[in-house]
Amino acid sequence: MVIPENSSIVIFGASGDLTYRKLIPALYHLYANDQLPKSFAILGVSRTEYSDESYRDKLKKSLQELEKTEPAILDAFCEHLHYQPVNTSDVDDYAKLSSRLDQLATDYQFEQRNTLFYLATPPSLYGVVPGCLAAHGLNDETHGWKRIIIEKPFGYDLESAQALDIEIHRHFQEHQIYRIDHYLGKETVQNMLVFRFANGMFEPLWNRNFVDYVEITGAEFLGVEERGGYYDGSGAVRDMFQNHLLQVLAMMTMEPPAAINANSIRNEVNKVLQSLQPLSEDDLHNNLVLGQYTESEVRGKFLKGYRDEHGVADDSRTETYMALKMFINNWRWNGVPFYVRSGKRLPTRVTEVVIHFKPTPHPVFAQTAPENKLILRIQPDEGILMSFGLKEPGAGFNAKEVSMDFHYASLEETQMLTAYERLLLDALNGDATLFARTDAVEACWKFVQPILDFKQDPQALYGYACGTWGPKESDELLKRDGRDWRYPCKNLTNTDYCEL
Amino acid sequence: MVIPENSSIVIFGASGDLTYRKLIPALYHLYANDQLPKSFAILGVSRTEYSDESYRDKLKKSLQELEKTEPAILDAFCEHLHYQPVNTSDVDDYAKLSSRLDQLATDYQFEQRNTLFYLATPPSLYGVVPGCLAAHGLNDETHGWKRIIIEKPFGYDLESAQALDIEIHRHFQEHQIYRIDHYLGKETVQNMLVFRFANGMFEPLWNRNFVDYVEITGAEFLGVEERGGYYDGSGAVRDMFQNHLLQVLAMMTMEPPAAINANSIRNEVNKVLQSLQPLSEDDLHNNLVLGQYTESEVRGKFLKGYRDEHGVADDSRTETYMALKMFINNWRWNGVPFYVRSGKRLPTRVTEVVIHFKPTPHPVFAQTAPENKLILRIQPDEGILMSFGLKEPGAGFNAKEVSMDFHYASLEETQMLTAYERLLLDALNGDATLFARTDAVEACWKFVQPILDFKQDPQALYGYACGTWGPKESDELLKRDGRDWRYPCKNLTNTDYCEL
Repeated sequence: MVIPENSSIVIFGASGDLTYRKLIPALYHLYANDQLPKSFAILGVSRTEYSDESYRDKLKKSLQELEKTEPAILDAFCEHLHYQPVNTSDVDDYAKLSSRLDQLATDYQFEQRNTLFYLATPPSLYGVVPGCLAAHGLNDETHGWKRIIIEKPFGYDLESAQALDIEIHRHFQEHQIYRIDHYLGKETVQNMLVFRFANGMFEPLWNRNFVDYVEITGAEFLGVEERGGYYDGSGAVRDMFQNHLLQVLAMMTMEPPAAINANSIRNEVNKVLQSLQPLSEDDLHNNLVLGQYTESEVRGKFLKGYRDEHGVADDSRTETYMALKMFINNWRWNGVPFYVRSGKRLPTRVTEVVIHFKPTPHPVFAQTAPENKLILRIQPDEGILMSFGLKEPGAGFNAKEVSMDFHYASLEETQMLTAYERLLLDALNGDATLFARTDAVEACWKFVQPILDFKQDPQALYGYACGTWGPKESDELLKRDGRDWRYPCKNLTNTDYCEL
Repeated sequence: MVIPENSSIVIFGASGDLTYRKLIPALYHLYANDQLPKSFAILGVSRTEYSDESYRDKLKKSLQELEKTEPAILDAFCEHLHYQPVNTSDVDDYAKLSSRLDQLATDYQFEQRNTLFYLATPPSLYGVVPGCLAAHGLNDETHGWKRIIIEKPFGYDLESAQALDIEIHRHFQEHQIYRIDHYLGKETVQNMLVFRFANGMFEPLWNRNFVDYVEITGAEFLGVEERGGYYDGSGAVRDMFQNHLLQVLAMMTMEPPAAINANSIRNEVNKVLQSLQPLSEDDLHNNLVLGQYTESEVRGKFLKGYRDEHGVADDSRTETYMALKMFINNWRWNGVPFYVRSGKRLPTRVTEVVIHFKPTPHPVFAQTAPENKLILRIQPDEGILMSFGLKEPGAGFNAKEVSMDFHYASLEETQMLTAYERLLLDALNGDATLFARTDAVEACWKFVQPILDFKQDPQALYGYACGTWGPKESDELLKRDGRDWRYPCKNLTNTDYCEL
């Protein structure tokens, strides 16, 4: 285990939801597990006026509500918390931040001025904060590293993403920029690399010769909840597909990296994203399904339609569901369809990759061949499932489909890091492997842009009742190819509801 | 489900152990499950004088002791039991059998004279009974099929096996001869064909490109028990290896058959057995380990050494353990070592095939690659186990070996046929798929003969304490190649004892 160098962690958006719910709990756990630097300061920054004391009290209470905490450890952790009010859009006001960091460096006796800036702010500030920091020399690495973590979304479309990138790069170099995609922080997403590249019995199968098709599903049971205003300007394509699901697809399909380091891995991620077959007009009309949830009663509970959600326009045409059939134009995957879907208000919450293997070259046994599937379950109930055929007991040689599974929960003494723990630790250690590189982000936007353009025109948007697996048109997308989506809940028909 | 044609089942050795313990219970279960012909007679034959009534009483009692029986079904089943005393080595005495069969045919109103002869006799009669049957025309198929089931051993060595074969073929044609190897009746042995030939995700791996080496283990915890006299003239090579384990190896390695029928499958079994690399002098000295168990205390219980067993000579050099490294000289398996071992008084009873896959072409992750193994468990706790690497939770990309398993016992409403049920049913249906064909038997003996010749000379025979995994020389056989036997019990060292 590598312990990061002594450093300050500056959180912009310190009074926001992400800070309370994710960042501070992650830092607390890292601290409790002795994974933070020997000496470190956490400095909250936002417009709100807090003192160190009142900020500490607030975070302490919130931590106690959210997590199991040890009083002694919690107290010791809170000693490291500080707060500095700054008007984050006013470049002059950053002088306060600069001198506060000087003060902390003296108090903590830092030899180097290592600083991690975390932008947990609204996206509108992503282009502003880097410039303000630079104006006060806070991007300068002469006396210690300076790194900046940027939350998604990295832009709103290809053009805005490119513009944002130019703006940030004006003040920070690529090696200083950590674009966070919390999906890459998930154990099960990282496991795709280990599973693929450490196992001699799976590696040979991982290509167009043996893989028939692949499904990638990112399903949520929740609707937009309190985020209707934000979501209505975003939609499923931007919110899930452009970042999370394309990253999952890249991990699942990339070539073996030359080595396990940030550049080698990200080179391969980038390569495969650049190999995505661009979507044609025909694809947009025939291989893409967009949907929006409509009101419905699910397990006796009435669920609002999307247009009735708080913050959503009455005539909104924002998609809460998307399904896409896509291809990768490279030697490994040519001709293998990838069916990717994501939606809100589906019957359950599940993210998984399902690899369907081709049947044997010739059906030796008379009856239908059993399906051969490998399921990489990303969440929840993280694990690996496999189904294949065994002899059905009794006379003859009939195959029966059976399954085996491995659940991460079955590991003894698992010390699973949450996504934010892992990613904060990596950033503190200067390991950018699990952060999106600028070229990969651009490749994703490039691929997605035709969908964004397409949905601008009033195109077909299909309704689906809350608690169903999306519009029936998405079923037809697969049925046309003689296939079916996997419904991850047993005995589930398209309109049933279940909890996994 | 195919129901066999009406027929008579004649059991020679009707008062013997095999009849009581295996054949009659198997027939009872088939009857209880409505798998026997609409009309059938079971005729016990041996020298002992029983009436139908006294024979029925005896079998009824023994069935009640051995099995859960339904009184009404048991009574109805026993109605079909008959008995005919015959001096089985006196050809003239078979006239009684012949007329008794006439009588039964009349009583049961058989349209055809279908007859299955089961030789559950000492091997000395295998060459005698067929001639006696033929002398009375009981091999004649003009008015219904005549089939003869012969129990192992089919001969004692290559020469005697060939002689026996000639003798039987003098009176019966190959299609009438059913050489039983109860290992082939096991669900899990048959499953090897389904598992291999119905699964697109395993089939591609099943060859020298991806398989590193294979272990086949047939371990027994029991010693020779009451069979010392027989066993001392046989030994592990004849008793387990020549038949059961070579059959298992053949099922595991054969090419896909042209079709699922007796001839196609047995052609492939035969082909692979004929491809076994003949054992050289060097193999016999360096790749073969023979052992004999010595007295020991196992879990507080004293267990006799082999030479102290009843019926065993004080200076016996019969092997109760064998381990062999062998190869298959064909395109699929060239160069892949098969390590086969079998023994009595080992720590547990287990038969399994362990396929070790090669590591990935290049170790992407710094640390040692996780082992990739597929275990086909033949008995007990029938099933499939797999181990491979997943990402160890936490920082970095370390692989951790985990396993998944499938157990037949987990199948709902499994109607597992016992080996004898399956094989009796197949013989009644004229399906010889799971019976050894003459060429395969000969190929096995041909392969084994050098071992038999070799052990004739007083060659090295290593002692091993009861309850251990055989002589240490067998460990060295693998260690030399940088490998280890799998010990199927967790946390087991070479001298521990455990129950699976």
